[in-house]
Amino acid sequence: MAATTKLDYAKPPPPLKDELDIVIPTIRNLEFLEMWRPFFEPYHLIIVQDGDPTKTIKVPDGFDYDLYNRNDIKKLLGPRASCISFKDSACRCFGYMVSKKKYIFTIDDDCFVAKDPSGKAINALEQHIKNLLCPSTPFFFNTLYDPFADGADFVRGYPFSLRDGVPTAVSHGLWLNIPDYDAPTQLVKPLERNQRYVDAVLTIPKGTLFPMCGMNLAFDRELIGPAMYFGLMGDGQPIGRYDDMWAGWCIKVICDHLGLGVKTGLPYIWHSKASNPFVNLRKEYKGIFWQEEIIPFFQSVSLPKDCTSVQKCYIELSKQVKEKLSKVDPYFDKLASAMVTWIEAWEEINPPTSASSKLSNGTAK
Amino acid sequence: MAATTKLDYAKPPPPLKDELDIVIPTIRNLEFLEMWRPFFEPYHLIIVQDGDPTKTIKVPDGFDYDLYNRNDIKKLLGPRASCISFKDSACRCFGYMVSKKKYIFTIDDDCFVAKDPSGKAINALEQHIKNLLCPSTPFFFNTLYDPFADGADFVRGYPFSLRDGVPTAVSHGLWLNIPDYDAPTQLVKPLERNQRYVDAVLTIPKGTLFPMCGMNLAFDRELIGPAMYFGLMGDGQPIGRYDDMWAGWCIKVICDHLGLGVKTGLPYIWHSKASNPFVNLRKEYKGIFWQEEIIPFFQSVSLPKDCTSVQKCYIELSKQVKEKLSKVDPYFDKLASAMVTWIEAWEEINPPTSASSKLSNGTAK
Repeated sequence: MAATTKLDYAKPPPPLKDELDIVIPTIRNLEFLEMWRPFFEPYHLIIVQDGDPTKTIKVPDGFDYDLYNRNDIKKLLGPRASCISFKDSACRCFGYMVSKKKYIFTIDDDCFVAKDPSGKAINALEQHIKNLLCPSTPFFFNTLYDPFADGADFVRGYPFSLRDGVPTAVSHGLWLNIPDYDAPTQLVKPLERNQRYVDAVLTIPKGTLFPMCGMNLAFDRELIGPAMYFGLMGDGQPIGRYDDMWAGWCIKVICDHLGLGVKTGLPYIWHSKASNPFVNLRKEYKGIFWQEEIIPFFQSVSLPKDCTSVQKCYIELSKQVKEKLSKVDPYFDKLASAMVTWIEAWEEINPPTSASSKLSNGTAK
Repeated sequence: MAATTKLDYAKPPPPLKDELDIVIPTIRNLEFLEMWRPFFEPYHLIIVQDGDPTKTIKVPDGFDYDLYNRNDIKKLLGPRASCISFKDSACRCFGYMVSKKKYIFTIDDDCFVAKDPSGKAINALEQHIKNLLCPSTPFFFNTLYDPFADGADFVRGYPFSLRDGVPTAVSHGLWLNIPDYDAPTQLVKPLERNQRYVDAVLTIPKGTLFPMCGMNLAFDRELIGPAMYFGLMGDGQPIGRYDDMWAGWCIKVICDHLGLGVKTGLPYIWHSKASNPFVNLRKEYKGIFWQEEIIPFFQSVSLPKDCTSVQKCYIELSKQVKEKLSKVDPYFDKLASAMVTWIEAWEEINPPTSASSKLSNGTAK
């Protein structure tokens, strides 16, 4: 509304301003946004309110947002709302589904602006956008890390034919202060803080799985969105705190299959508060055992050549989950069905366009 | 010779003092050692003099060393000396062969002590030793990098069964100032300097190849020594500057097969001088084409289960090189034969002991 000043002319517009949504799952007032205001205010927020839908969530003035509570989710998805977790931050994936943008950044409400070693506030979103807009290099490791970073390049011995890289689908950011540890490690090392600022972004090589944390994560919704399902956690489920892990395993095998890249490293956020390790242990308990079988399963997943879209890959993956993991626990049978429901809901909310049908003609590698 | 002072009691002995040799290939006087004196003086040096054997190489006083020139190599290996490159720093691998120690650190004579961001001189050797003495984690990626580093650990979602890790065979260090670029990149970016200090060590995942640089490299000779052959380069050969790359591809597929780890990252050295890009282009020329076929070859190499020792793996690899790469150029036929000669020479100089026969009963993965 203010008159345009000379300064405004000089300032470049925020990158991807109209192409990116910020998704925040929450149960509380969002004062944490105050600290992010300089970086987030130009963007649209999608707030997914978890728990009691009658509670009012306060959002600081000046932010542009849509807020969805459980009633909204049910209204929009009908019986398919069953695939969206309740009383667990896994509900955030509903925000991915209803977004109309190409890119998503998702962040937890206990994450604040971190500082780099020079003391400068880190614009996490800007770094994620950089990561997403430049290629990944999953087929060969570059020892100087991201070859597209300023002052870096491919080193001697890096095959020239691989230097184009592949499109980046996911950018996984890290956390200073409270590290993302499991309950047993939290119990054993209650005072450990992450103080190591590692100035690097790197592509996770093809064929390698990683523990994807949903606290500080960005992705290209058009490239990988339908696989970013955070599973069934929380209320009525036997497990919690594996929502992002599940999504991470799924997206990685699908990115590997479709020739897309996954990056990890910068940006850091400041993770303020350790969650209660006893509560966490209760949530994680079964997962600690199950992951020993789930990970070999994902390490050996092979998707057929005719899976040329994310949706097709995901439906195929759901079949393999049902077939191979149901014997671990009946939960995986339910999860496999929810994976199908998720895709049905995704397609209902996001009817195919010419762009997405173009994608489904992509080449599988 | 000096009387033991109180201070000496307080100082811990240099790590692995009697178990590590420092291998330096050179054609010039070794003044560069002055800067390394505080870190290297306690260790034994193996200097491999390249080029004219009548030239005298000056080594600063106080260092304990053996120096081998071309005449020494011929005397020791006889006709098998043909597998050791001449007029190329690839000759350094002769030093690996004649060492009697468990660990090797090799460094180029244009590499100096770098400083960390706090301005402290980096003891590169000490960091390599740390890397080698703690396990690697090649089967799953840890997003906080080396889980064994101070203040770090495995993150949430890292399978507990994989947290033992595997023995580390190789530690690949990096370079500040002059980055290790190929000739085309040197020509295009003559002024680029590496100023990014990335405070991380990481395991290169199983199944992923990397460009291994021989400038600043350490390894466990008992675990992987016989595969650290730097090939046929320099005088009389159609190629140069691929010695360390060749070794890197070979050791990686063998480490993957035997369940051993390869790390990259810290420590940094200060690489002082860019080599001439025109000379380099002449040396690299064929390699730029060949690597496009060599890398897919190594990516698809499969070693049979009965290859349970490094030597057996290496002989098997030589057969596959002969079979699959000779069609790229007759050079690979010669190289495959040299690989066999190298193993013969290695076994002659290092007759099997109970320790190494124990190794050959190890389990292949």
